[in-house]
Amino acid sequence: MATSRRQWMKENLAVATLAPTFMTPNKVKGYSVDEVEKRLDAQNPIEGVEKQDLPTPALLLDLNRLENNLATMNEYAKSQSVNLRPHAKTHKCAEIAHRQIAMGALGVCTATIYEAEQMDKAGIGGILITSELVGPNKIGRLVRLTKKRPDTMAVVDSAEHATQLSEAAGTAKVDLNVLIDIDPVGRRTGVAPGETAVELAKTIDRMQNLKFCGVHGYSGASSHVVGFDARKKHSIQYMTPVIESFRKMQRDGLPAEIMSGTSTGTYNIDPALGMTELQVGSYVFMDIDYRIIGGNGENTELYEDFQQSLTVLATVISQNYSDRATLDSGLKAFATDRDFGPEVVGYRGVKYRFGGDEHGILTLDEPDPAVNLGDKVELVVPHCDPNVNLYDRMYCTRGNKVVDVWKVIGRGHG
Amino acid sequence: MATSRRQWMKENLAVATLAPTFMTPNKVKGYSVDEVEKRLDAQNPIEGVEKQDLPTPALLLDLNRLENNLATMNEYAKSQSVNLRPHAKTHKCAEIAHRQIAMGALGVCTATIYEAEQMDKAGIGGILITSELVGPNKIGRLVRLTKKRPDTMAVVDSAEHATQLSEAAGTAKVDLNVLIDIDPVGRRTGVAPGETAVELAKTIDRMQNLKFCGVHGYSGASSHVVGFDARKKHSIQYMTPVIESFRKMQRDGLPAEIMSGTSTGTYNIDPALGMTELQVGSYVFMDIDYRIIGGNGENTELYEDFQQSLTVLATVISQNYSDRATLDSGLKAFATDRDFGPEVVGYRGVKYRFGGDEHGILTLDEPDPAVNLGDKVELVVPHCDPNVNLYDRMYCTRGNKVVDVWKVIGRGHG
Repeated sequence: MATSRRQWMKENLAVATLAPTFMTPNKVKGYSVDEVEKRLDAQNPIEGVEKQDLPTPALLLDLNRLENNLATMNEYAKSQSVNLRPHAKTHKCAEIAHRQIAMGALGVCTATIYEAEQMDKAGIGGILITSELVGPNKIGRLVRLTKKRPDTMAVVDSAEHATQLSEAAGTAKVDLNVLIDIDPVGRRTGVAPGETAVELAKTIDRMQNLKFCGVHGYSGASSHVVGFDARKKHSIQYMTPVIESFRKMQRDGLPAEIMSGTSTGTYNIDPALGMTELQVGSYVFMDIDYRIIGGNGENTELYEDFQQSLTVLATVISQNYSDRATLDSGLKAFATDRDFGPEVVGYRGVKYRFGGDEHGILTLDEPDPAVNLGDKVELVVPHCDPNVNLYDRMYCTRGNKVVDVWKVIGRGHG
Repeated sequence: MATSRRQWMKENLAVATLAPTFMTPNKVKGYSVDEVEKRLDAQNPIEGVEKQDLPTPALLLDLNRLENNLATMNEYAKSQSVNLRPHAKTHKCAEIAHRQIAMGALGVCTATIYEAEQMDKAGIGGILITSELVGPNKIGRLVRLTKKRPDTMAVVDSAEHATQLSEAAGTAKVDLNVLIDIDPVGRRTGVAPGETAVELAKTIDRMQNLKFCGVHGYSGASSHVVGFDARKKHSIQYMTPVIESFRKMQRDGLPAEIMSGTSTGTYNIDPALGMTELQVGSYVFMDIDYRIIGGNGENTELYEDFQQSLTVLATVISQNYSDRATLDSGLKAFATDRDFGPEVVGYRGVKYRFGGDEHGILTLDEPDPAVNLGDKVELVVPHCDPNVNLYDRMYCTRGNKVVDVWKVIGRGHG
């Protein structure tokens, strides 16, 4: 998960060249979170609500950039004749899922049964839950969701787990669709590729009330390999045995139709290997973590296939020293699981560091523009999935205007 | 924020000696989050809901330990004749705030205006908001809260900020209670102690519609100094100038009645220095971060004045290798802002490491008891405040029984 100091410097320089979006407070009103939502619910687009009217910290989603990202991925998938079932664990947002499906996606992936339940409530089907659902609680809920939406799919990585699923499905008189989870490299979940996987697939295929549909193989270790060529080599090395196992299942007469996997980091690598569908997630938002892995285009230093659409809006709440200013956005406002923090957008000579649960410290080195008490500052998030998980809503913007509020559903729960 | 390897080892050894609370799944049902809450709402205590029935990851609160912690702090404050206004940013939970106040606390502190609004909605007054509320949005909301609850207090650290508050209060025809925020050491928020602080206090006292009430001084840098004697020395060094400033204000005839500050790490150090009230927070839950700072009792290696009442319940969802098992609780289930992760309770030979957004990896070295697919595991959280912030509810337990569900209110918002 680490990035080198050199990459980090490079990224900071790159961000400094983005168009400035700094703001100073103007004739704003004291809206509470509830009031802003009420106002946004009442009329869309909203007259007069701008970024600087929002309570901070606030999660902002740039809709132009989001739409651009959705279109780019969609066109790529079409050009490769591969299906999309994008991962909703990144956005946990029904409005984004609906847009993905309207553009042709088969449905969405979710990481948890709770995310799946929330997506179902929002009218979204075609759900593949990509983590093993183990134990009566989660299996019982999977059974109920499948009764309502028969195209729901789950993953399984052992005969013991498959037996649990089969028994619960039999009791409930429903057929559960399952993919065998093959572990490319992470030793996190999944069975080893090769004969072990093929044998387990056969075992599953023989079980009552389980409908074997194919393979889930996600090489998380490949997704953040820095440098396109190194990443390609890594993904080919580890995904090839998985896809070979999938082909062997087909040759052996198993009804293996789906080969699902692939991250935003390998979306333009894996389709050629034989994926039938991609579960890319982060491309909708991007983050610092992905930006520094490098791209395959003209700029190989930074990954720029997709645009950074997600930021946190913060307020300068203390400015008693010339060399620093304090923001109202700290450890509770940003994902902290990487060894780098968020990045300030639109300033030169301004860096962010964490200053505690509620505070961030801006270090000022001839800042341009100047930083003053009350100023609003936007910051690119370090790692998008856990950052979204900290918020209940995203404020959707076009330029400085706030045009909508989308709920983050399915966060945090099992 | 770092801890030494030696401390880390010590802590792991200590935790291994706790009473085991491992569980295996039994005749549980497939409750969803909503259903568990509905059932818990309907009858209290609940017949038959046990820890292993809960969807995971779930935040668990051991009520016996919580009650013990509340009583311990309360008795200490009484013995020192110092007031308590505990910090609700730790728990963000009305039920805990009500219990603190019922035992004699003056009210609660909050870090944000949103937390304050939520506490108000839950019927809790006597609120001190300990971060500067800057800009029309937050000041407008402070004005409204103060109109409803005239004992609300805010902090201020510059004449410019005080002017904003005074003007908004004048327009709304309300008096705002303010404490001057003096910075002991952190250079995060606050004005320097000494003459600068006293002069700013006089400026504030002269402003229209501001009622000057005293000093807020929180030495966050002292709270986690390892070793009681070193911590005491640190807090005395940095808090003395703050308290001297408070006394100078009193000598100069300012109505400085409140001297507020102090963390769980310095609760038994600062009262002697002249605090009038303590804003201790973490003592209700404790965490690994506090446990390793060392205590002043018989065991100076570990801080054991308060008990660890907060854990995350996880499920073993994959067990394909003898040397490891995978949990359903990863980066989204735990605070990740420290350089150590959560700790497994009740097992020998089992360590946790992060395995991604949704997964944790248990490394198994002759585990006792054995770890099997579907087992439930409890883990002590690394850092309590941001860990609570990840959840919407705490499941309250006595032994293995779940006896209540308390909502986490005020998380995440500005």
